[in-house]
Amino acid sequence: MILNLRPHITEEERDQVLAQVSHVTGHPSLLPVEIEGRQVLALDASHFDWEARSMLAGLPGVESIIPIPTPYKLVSRHFKAERSAIVVGNGAYCNPVTIGGTELPTIIAGPCAVESRGQILLTASAVKSAGAHILRGGAYKPRTSPYQFQGLGIEGLWLLAEAREATGLPTVTEVMEPELVETVAQYADLLQIGARNMQNYPLLRACGQQRQKRPVLLKRGLSATITELLLAAEYIVASGNPNVILCERGIRSYDTATRNVLDLTAIPLLNELTHLPVIVDPSHATGKSSLVPTMARASIVAGSNGIIVEVHCDPDQALCDAQQAITPYQLRYIAQDAINLARFSPHTRESERLKTDPEPVQAHLLSKR
Amino acid sequence: MILNLRPHITEEERDQVLAQVSHVTGHPSLLPVEIEGRQVLALDASHFDWEARSMLAGLPGVESIIPIPTPYKLVSRHFKAERSAIVVGNGAYCNPVTIGGTELPTIIAGPCAVESRGQILLTASAVKSAGAHILRGGAYKPRTSPYQFQGLGIEGLWLLAEAREATGLPTVTEVMEPELVETVAQYADLLQIGARNMQNYPLLRACGQQRQKRPVLLKRGLSATITELLLAAEYIVASGNPNVILCERGIRSYDTATRNVLDLTAIPLLNELTHLPVIVDPSHATGKSSLVPTMARASIVAGSNGIIVEVHCDPDQALCDAQQAITPYQLRYIAQDAINLARFSPHTRESERLKTDPEPVQAHLLSKR
Amino acid sequence: MILNLRPHITEEERDQVLAQVSHVTGHPSLLPVEIEGRQVLALDASHFDWEARSMLAGLPGVESIIPIPTPYKLVSRHFKAERSAIVVGNGAYCNPVTIGGTELPTIIAGPCAVESRGQILLTASAVKSAGAHILRGGAYKPRTSPYQFQGLGIEGLWLLAEAREATGLPTVTEVMEPELVETVAQYADLLQIGARNMQNYPLLRACGQQRQKRPVLLKRGLSATITELLLAAEYIVASGNPNVILCERGIRSYDTATRNVLDLTAIPLLNELTHLPVIVDPSHATGKSSLVPTMARASIVAGSNGIIVEVHCDPDQALCDAQQAITPYQLRYIAQDAINLARFSPHTRESERLKTDPEPVQAHLLSKR
Amino acid sequence: MILNLRPHITEEERDQVLAQVSHVTGHPSLLPVEIEGRQVLALDASHFDWEARSMLAGLPGVESIIPIPTPYKLVSRHFKAERSAIVVGNGAYCNPVTIGGTELPTIIAGPCAVESRGQILLTASAVKSAGAHILRGGAYKPRTSPYQFQGLGIEGLWLLAEAREATGLPTVTEVMEPELVETVAQYADLLQIGARNMQNYPLLRACGQQRQKRPVLLKRGLSATITELLLAAEYIVASGNPNVILCERGIRSYDTATRNVLDLTAIPLLNELTHLPVIVDPSHATGKSSLVPTMARASIVAGSNGIIVEVHCDPDQALCDAQQAITPYQLRYIAQDAINLARFSPHTRESERLKTDPEPVQAHLLSKR
Repeated sequence: MILNLRPHITEEERDQVLAQVSHVTGHPSLLPVEIEGRQVLALDASHFDWEARSMLAGLPGVESIIPIPTPYKLVSRHFKAERSAIVVGNGAYCNPVTIGGTELPTIIAGPCAVESRGQILLTASAVKSAGAHILRGGAYKPRTSPYQFQGLGIEGLWLLAEAREATGLPTVTEVMEPELVETVAQYADLLQIGARNMQNYPLLRACGQQRQKRPVLLKRGLSATITELLLAAEYIVASGNPNVILCERGIRSYDTATRNVLDLTAIPLLNELTHLPVIVDPSHATGKSSLVPTMARASIVAGSNGIIVEVHCDPDQALCDAQQAITPYQLRYIAQDAINLARFSPHTRESERLKTDPEPVQAHLLSKR
Repeated sequence: MILNLRPHITEEERDQVLAQVSHVTGHPSLLPVEIEGRQVLALDASHFDWEARSMLAGLPGVESIIPIPTPYKLVSRHFKAERSAIVVGNGAYCNPVTIGGTELPTIIAGPCAVESRGQILLTASAVKSAGAHILRGGAYKPRTSPYQFQGLGIEGLWLLAEAREATGLPTVTEVMEPELVETVAQYADLLQIGARNMQNYPLLRACGQQRQKRPVLLKRGLSATITELLLAAEYIVASGNPNVILCERGIRSYDTATRNVLDLTAIPLLNELTHLPVIVDPSHATGKSSLVPTMARASIVAGSNGIIVEVHCDPDQALCDAQQAITPYQLRYIAQDAINLARFSPHTRESERLKTDPEPVQAHLLSKR
Repeated sequence: MILNLRPHITEEERDQVLAQVSHVTGHPSLLPVEIEGRQVLALDASHFDWEARSMLAGLPGVESIIPIPTPYKLVSRHFKAERSAIVVGNGAYCNPVTIGGTELPTIIAGPCAVESRGQILLTASAVKSAGAHILRGGAYKPRTSPYQFQGLGIEGLWLLAEAREATGLPTVTEVMEPELVETVAQYADLLQIGARNMQNYPLLRACGQQRQKRPVLLKRGLSATITELLLAAEYIVASGNPNVILCERGIRSYDTATRNVLDLTAIPLLNELTHLPVIVDPSHATGKSSLVPTMARASIVAGSNGIIVEVHCDPDQALCDAQQAITPYQLRYIAQDAINLARFSPHTRESERLKTDPEPVQAHLLSKR
Repeated sequence: MILNLRPHITEEERDQVLAQVSHVTGHPSLLPVEIEGRQVLALDASHFDWEARSMLAGLPGVESIIPIPTPYKLVSRHFKAERSAIVVGNGAYCNPVTIGGTELPTIIAGPCAVESRGQILLTASAVKSAGAHILRGGAYKPRTSPYQFQGLGIEGLWLLAEAREATGLPTVTEVMEPELVETVAQYADLLQIGARNMQNYPLLRACGQQRQKRPVLLKRGLSATITELLLAAEYIVASGNPNVILCERGIRSYDTATRNVLDLTAIPLLNELTHLPVIVDPSHATGKSSLVPTMARASIVAGSNGIIVEVHCDPDQALCDAQQAITPYQLRYIAQDAINLARFSPHTRESERLKTDPEPVQAHLLSKR
């Protein structure tokens, strides 16, 4: 259930709403969040009786009540039917890019990790030329072993910011702990929460409550269900930051022929369930550079709002995930095709269909009997 | 290892080859098969020493030896680099259709099960009008429960043959046991081996040895690896029938949001590993009709040689798998898009690229340094 | 729903029942089966209205109706609460062994495959001395690759029968195709349906309808759910053979550290859901001989009615699955421990508990408040 | 590779070692840790050439070099063959408990979440009477939905500490973020890292570097491999805290019949690979209270050093995970059986076997030939 609070609600009315919500849910810390100018408060009403519902509806501070049948509330299309468009980057250091809504697919590209000044500047320039809109690059790297390269840390953030200034591309980089959220938000335009941290709730909350309200790129966990992914996004939104972009990056399976199994069906499914933009990471999903361009193209047709790919000017020399990086040369063709393929995606397909085919096919077929 | 036998090998030489192969492999029943006019004999040479190899190479009946590093031999691209094109149907009852090679995507459509004369004739006509090339329809249905509808059996085969004659569409239907292979081959043009039977070795062998050499549509098992799928195909080919079409139909995962997880990356991966055509079944993969058209389109871009979809003129009344059937109306758009999307698939993409982009992108980017 | 037919039902009444059942289910081929002297007919009544139910209940041939809430009927504990005890082997060639009911755990042991007369006779004698009750050995082997050893076939059956005669141990061996069911039933006392064939419905039916009514050992499929396993058993029972033993043998997972993941919790769960005996195959589940003894012991405590293990007198020389075979020496300790561990299993634990602990623990604790 | 540093290494020598290690690994932050009085430094030497190895071995500060073939080093049995015994709790507030080594199984029990003063005090007393050695109880709860009960937080820690003082039981509770590690370590004796945080590297490091060196209970991730679990433990140990206890709590699978699949084979496997103690959580693994006692018993036989179970005096009223909590009454029988079953575990089985069976079984059998 979502409570739409009254536009000019008094502090007293607000406190009354919070007290009653805390009373009926037994959950003391729920707070209203502002989404597109509205103050709303989401809660789980699945165990409410009629009395609780009508009591809440009757509070002076509550304008209306939106029943939401799913466990996730604010990210659901029941709450908001039109697709969200999220702006990444601001005019000061880079050219803002919009992901989602009715935009053409966004290309996010760059190295797995920021390795050196030369590497990130060269790659930034190369991916820009190839058609990328946003630069990716890891400064803090989550690695399975403590003995693997862990990223350049704060120095990596500085270099990434320098590459942004040089190219005008907004940047995305991973943040791994709550304490570093504000720091990373200072240097990057889009905060990535990695697959291993999808259910790191303190981190999700910290990204929701950050001062600068940088949008968040939330990657699906290695074996997260669609519902769990949406509930993780709900944590961020319910903490105050409505700008979340989801990312399918492959799930774990029994077959080791590819690094993960790209669950591409998740794209149209998520587009049915949520208004948030969804992108695909074909690099981590496949783990094999020869498969990346093909799956990047297929992602666009599946309705992805963009792709995030690992690009390295000299993949054989990459410090991490070398075997899945493509070259700027390959990226160029993907970027070109993305534009052409976008018109086959379900986003544009539906309306086009109605325009070009007024004649009812089914009736026509039945007459053949 | 594959032994290329001499074109005009004598019976004595052949017996000598078989005796020696049986001796070094300890596998008494390996036989040569004829593929594109050549007599070849595949075997597992992974444990051979140098002596065994040179002994086989030196036999009078052996023209040459092809080393194959993978456990599957005859289906590997190491054996045959160019993509196989397989003809379904012959001129007597229907219009032959070629799947694979350089052909445009093939659309296979029809009901989950043949339910009645009216239903199959109407659907056949409807899918033909919508652009389908082959008619599908189950006569023998593998059902999880013995209390579910099990198909019309032989009567279903008769009705399917009648629909073929009425429309000219070749047909595909499932065969579930070795004893019925010849019967089904009499009435249908393409024999389907279902996911549950992918490792039913007597059935695979029976489909390989059948008299009429109908091509076989082999569906990937519910949790089969890519290697296991190719080895299952190898059983059919090594038994004498080189005409196998592979089908990705979703694999089992922990998430119940969709019926299965469509492993679309398997398409470009299989295209790297095997010369056999590969198609996609988005109906069983997703289990949800609203997702089928999108995933059908994405499949073509991923390099699928075709799709097999469940179509029902009145999905709500279908006797099985109602929730995943699309209408002929929807099929029509998929079929149209399939043609347009084929040029984005990796099959055509590579050559096109070379033609349209002679200028080396990478060099250009590097000069920016 | 299960219909209990009247003890001395006339043929006319029987036909009437069948006609009505066929009418309301739309399933023409359901037949009554005899279970413990009763004629019963199971069907899926989930879509029945009140009228259909009362019509069936009112038929002269129907004595009573048992509602069964699960999709499986005859194998459910709703149909039969006490645990089934199934006899393997008859007095002519071997010593009969009872699996299930209140029996101590049954030890089934032997080689993966019958390889030679010497090997099977030696192993049979060794496993008998070590405490085994039933001899296992594959004559027809389902192998992933057509180039692997496929078993000795009919010769393997002969050798197995000879080992039975020599030791008095009943035997179990795999049957892979419907056509061979009667042949295998002639030489072996327990017919094994392998994991790959769990949903091979013609094979399940053939094992249900065989003349000799040999009991069937049904292995869980590589990624079969518990419900699917029970429905596969239902196929056999509904075809006329109530003597089915289930076998957990590991399921497929993302981790390759062991061959499969032994789902040991399936044992107590199946014991809640079905009256059929359940055994465990720790050899295929773990794939590693060092883990087999430990998991065999754990299986007994989990409530398994027995274990089936691969034993080889010289594991390093085994023609298949060498790395998972244990020696007769190791088997001996497992067999001894199995007897001691049986009293910790849930089968015996419940009653013992009541005897030894009349004093209510919970009340005692509460008084401490 | 592990470098054993010289006992009285000078600061200069130490700096030289660090400089050289940093040079050859390219990993600037590796530091020696003290384990059982030795200063050791682990690193990944898989890409080292002979020169690098001998250079490190020749450094004045390096006493010896231990090659470790696995990606995890300090937790490997290659580094330490004898099983680690880890003490939980100190004498000031509670009775210390040793987990691992040659100890009998440890019983950890208590509610999912601390809900109120009355509930935790009653439960603590009840589980103590029933035979538990350590009290569990969640103060900070990771919940899939932001709208679920999130735990009492710091107040929960206070109540847990009070229950410890009342009963003398050491306590374990979950810590979810690096910033709270010191706080939780102040109130609890064993820090739990939950399944969702198994790869939360900043949290692992914080638990390794904490001032009080509380032992850590590391739960296996929902779909973590055995290698990933051991590498996560390595993060903690390499950060300075050698006291890590591993916990198998079920992995995610395709079957929803149980909450997770308890991978019990992981216990003997981990016992082969690591010297760290391993325990089992049958509550989260099965998710169903009727299955918990059986799987708890099976765990002990599999070689588990203990179990952690959810106990609630009135399960139906539990605020979270109600359906998987057992009662103190049930716990009592599990605790009794654990002692009796311990002698069947692989830890004690091996030596016992040698004592009771000097006669070589295999030879005896072979003589039958």
